[in-house]
Amino acid sequence: MALTGRRKLLNEVIFGTETPAGRNFDVFLIWAILISVGLVLLASIGPIADRYGTLLITLEWLFTGLFTLEYAARIYCSVNRRKYIFSFYGVVDLLAILPSYLALLYTGATYLLVIRLLRVLRIFRILKLVRYLQDANLLLRALGLARRKILVFYSSVLVMCVIFGSLMFVVEGPENGFTSIPTSVYWAIVTITTVGYGDISPHTPLGQAIAAMTMLIGYSIIAVPTGILTAELAGEMHRERKHHRCNNCGRSVHDPDAEFCKFCGYRLEPSLQVEEV
Amino acid sequence: MALTGRRKLLNEVIFGTETPAGRNFDVFLIWAILISVGLVLLASIGPIADRYGTLLITLEWLFTGLFTLEYAARIYCSVNRRKYIFSFYGVVDLLAILPSYLALLYTGATYLLVIRLLRVLRIFRILKLVRYLQDANLLLRALGLARRKILVFYSSVLVMCVIFGSLMFVVEGPENGFTSIPTSVYWAIVTITTVGYGDISPHTPLGQAIAAMTMLIGYSIIAVPTGILTAELAGEMHRERKHHRCNNCGRSVHDPDAEFCKFCGYRLEPSLQVEEV
Amino acid sequence: MALTGRRKLLNEVIFGTETPAGRNFDVFLIWAILISVGLVLLASIGPIADRYGTLLITLEWLFTGLFTLEYAARIYCSVNRRKYIFSFYGVVDLLAILPSYLALLYTGATYLLVIRLLRVLRIFRILKLVRYLQDANLLLRALGLARRKILVFYSSVLVMCVIFGSLMFVVEGPENGFTSIPTSVYWAIVTITTVGYGDISPHTPLGQAIAAMTMLIGYSIIAVPTGILTAELAGEMHRERKHHRCNNCGRSVHDPDAEFCKFCGYRLEPSLQVEEV
Amino acid sequence: MALTGRRKLLNEVIFGTETPAGRNFDVFLIWAILISVGLVLLASIGPIADRYGTLLITLEWLFTGLFTLEYAARIYCSVNRRKYIFSFYGVVDLLAILPSYLALLYTGATYLLVIRLLRVLRIFRILKLVRYLQDANLLLRALGLARRKILVFYSSVLVMCVIFGSLMFVVEGPENGFTSIPTSVYWAIVTITTVGYGDISPHTPLGQAIAAMTMLIGYSIIAVPTGILTAELAGEMHRERKHHRCNNCGRSVHDPDAEFCKFCGYRLEPSLQVEEV
Repeated sequence: MALTGRRKLLNEVIFGTETPAGRNFDVFLIWAILISVGLVLLASIGPIADRYGTLLITLEWLFTGLFTLEYAARIYCSVNRRKYIFSFYGVVDLLAILPSYLALLYTGATYLLVIRLLRVLRIFRILKLVRYLQDANLLLRALGLARRKILVFYSSVLVMCVIFGSLMFVVEGPENGFTSIPTSVYWAIVTITTVGYGDISPHTPLGQAIAAMTMLIGYSIIAVPTGILTAELAGEMHRERKHHRCNNCGRSVHDPDAEFCKFCGYRLEPSLQVEEV
Repeated sequence: MALTGRRKLLNEVIFGTETPAGRNFDVFLIWAILISVGLVLLASIGPIADRYGTLLITLEWLFTGLFTLEYAARIYCSVNRRKYIFSFYGVVDLLAILPSYLALLYTGATYLLVIRLLRVLRIFRILKLVRYLQDANLLLRALGLARRKILVFYSSVLVMCVIFGSLMFVVEGPENGFTSIPTSVYWAIVTITTVGYGDISPHTPLGQAIAAMTMLIGYSIIAVPTGILTAELAGEMHRERKHHRCNNCGRSVHDPDAEFCKFCGYRLEPSLQVEEV
Repeated sequence: MALTGRRKLLNEVIFGTETPAGRNFDVFLIWAILISVGLVLLASIGPIADRYGTLLITLEWLFTGLFTLEYAARIYCSVNRRKYIFSFYGVVDLLAILPSYLALLYTGATYLLVIRLLRVLRIFRILKLVRYLQDANLLLRALGLARRKILVFYSSVLVMCVIFGSLMFVVEGPENGFTSIPTSVYWAIVTITTVGYGDISPHTPLGQAIAAMTMLIGYSIIAVPTGILTAELAGEMHRERKHHRCNNCGRSVHDPDAEFCKFCGYRLEPSLQVEEV
Repeated sequence: MALTGRRKLLNEVIFGTETPAGRNFDVFLIWAILISVGLVLLASIGPIADRYGTLLITLEWLFTGLFTLEYAARIYCSVNRRKYIFSFYGVVDLLAILPSYLALLYTGATYLLVIRLLRVLRIFRILKLVRYLQDANLLLRALGLARRKILVFYSSVLVMCVIFGSLMFVVEGPENGFTSIPTSVYWAIVTITTVGYGDISPHTPLGQAIAAMTMLIGYSIIAVPTGILTAELAGEMHRERKHHRCNNCGRSVHDPDAEFCKFCGYRLEPSLQVEEV
């Protein structure tokens, strides 16, 4: 279904980035999002909330009104309304205004407005940073390929944390801060990820020995996700180069900046270069 | 020896995953394991143990009875009993019920029941996640290849920790928390693995200088296991992708550019090379 | 414009490294910089400042005078004055003397003199450590190639920190140290980078669960920049090793298996290929 | 000069590992070293030193006497005495006994006896773990190749730590624990290496913002040595395979387990395989 009249115009301004009006709208929107998130951050600081409370709440409702209007306009002018509402950005757009209304019922909800930050991801769209998106896609593709390996890895880490945590609970006990097995598992995660807050730490010699073992294991285990991802990334980057195929000899593995086939000297077609990814 | 009658049926249900009954049994078992481990975790939390103590103990013995029955049934229906009992899962199955009985003699033992979590590893079997197991195998193979290098690395790290720990004991002394060399070695491990609890930290300028050196060394040393594993993993993944099989001797693991089998000298068929994934 | 007479001589001594006088000047300069930075560090230690205050201030002004003279001389004898003043080193040279004069107005400014340390980067120039510079360039080139991917990565990490920080602020609240969202974001950064000071740490079970999740995410995320950089570095180093130069267009960076120049299609000479490494 | 008589016999027992006596001597020596280091560790624990003080001191002198005798014997029976005394192991052997004698003058020196641990490195020799040494050599070679890049990296990290440390000293000041610039530099190192003790941590909002920046930089910088080392290691491991050259077609890049050339099917000579590395 093609849009006409006012809806078509609105669609071009709100969803499009081709016209100057569309670009200006997006730039304005991103500033509005950043400022409104900044306001939420400021409102959470006690002394500032005390002094400028009314101003902040007014501004907050102003932005909520603005974003509600924008959300309504998006629904109004989108070609396929159902598709927009249930798309990633549709849900984020709704979540970005919901907490304000929820806050009428429950006070803490306003702080959840930081979810508006997710809307800033649109930034990649206006800036037409195709190259950036390509790189983000490369990362996501490599993560996708590493998915199963990383799941296997996380399962092992969690099983290990539960077992080490329980061991420490038995060895150190509640008198040294290991008040329960869940708390001890929390300690094991803090230790194995090398965060090491120090809010809970072993005091008995045996506990310190087990902790040292946990750390050394965590230390070498940190290598696993890095190894997995690096290997996948290297493969992905290699494959991206491979997408260049010579029309003469059919061989690929050309660099992205190559203009001639390195095997037969035939000129590579630029159209094929563009079509890649 | 082939099983017959009831033993065969039991074997199919308990060990098999082909029949619906076998799959249902495994799904039921995994839920039972997870719930029983959850109970152990809950029982370790003081207030909960005080209020629901009797209930938890009852449920605990229920699960122990269930797992004991299952263990007996496994022994009864396995084709080769000795082999099952001394297999990895046979030992884990025994360990999963032992602490309950030990707890009659020594109270703390119940917490060791978290070892039941190891039984959940069976989860990979029922879900028939062959691909997951392949990935786990790839990881294990890469770790196996990196074994010797990682051992050399760990020896050096431990020697370094003992020497740095002793140095700090001499420099800082018991008045700054470095109460003995073993404690100082514990500090060195906490520091070199970048965990950094802060329960023991240097206070003299000289001690801080040595600590800074320890950290910088630990910082660059973290690169070593990552480097080793990444290099091995990349090699393994590369090799897996090129599953070149020789038609003469049936062996694979050939490089993609190989034209002859490196084990028997037989010419590899190009069609097989194409078929690779 | 070619320099003559005194200006030419001065230029050779100050900017040049070919003549013995030029090399000696640079060696002298680097020692002066290191000593003057050392003095700033010493002057910041309370007891030393109390005892040797006057001596340190005198020496400080001596070095400032020296560096001011040098800066004037550099402007005087440079071929293109405007270009020098706005070059990287020109700005650093100015910044290296500015804080001393600012300190007449504002006391704390003297400590900013450590910026003089940047001038030591000249060290690479006098030592003619071409190989070192090549390696630094390789690192910078790999970082340059990874630039966009790392920016995408940092944006995601920051968005994640703001969202996790806000969540913790709602869950833990000011009574557990999470006094405001900016503070909570600071906690999220401390946690996700695995620094883990422990000055702010979760106390409620739900907060600890969220913190554990944050850590596990941070743990796997640490793999991303490493993976990116390693893949780029490996590519860069590989390319450097195979400095294939085309006899027709003079361009290099060809793959080792290339037979034709990928830029102009000219056949590469095999003799040049052998000469590689 | 060839040794004869008693000196030759002693040399075979002490330095050699071919005869059963030589192997037994080395095994005995390593146990003696490990036990004597264990004694030093025990002697540093207050309560143990109080109770078993005399016993520990007696044993300590026993081992010192033993090692002194061994050192004298090594000098006596070595072919080239000067070479032995100034070799790595010669110096370590001397250092292993020196602290005991120094302790007669200065008490703390006994703890330096842990340096004896370095002597255990001989363990690789008796076990004839040639493969282990090969792996250690591979690691050392990769580190050697990465040497210059890692030096450039460390210089940048140190310059960054001094500048960030000074900034924090100005911003936070002595009242928040940043008592002097050297202390602040120590804080910067603790932070950038992600150790994060928490003994010194920022309290002002501006300080926390700078600290967050320091962490994020440290977080991405940790990728650099890993990337460098991984790339070098991968190259080294690749090269090790390359050492296999076919006598028929002259091409290399064969796997270590290859028996036939993968390019021409010619049988690879085992002699060449052995000679590698």
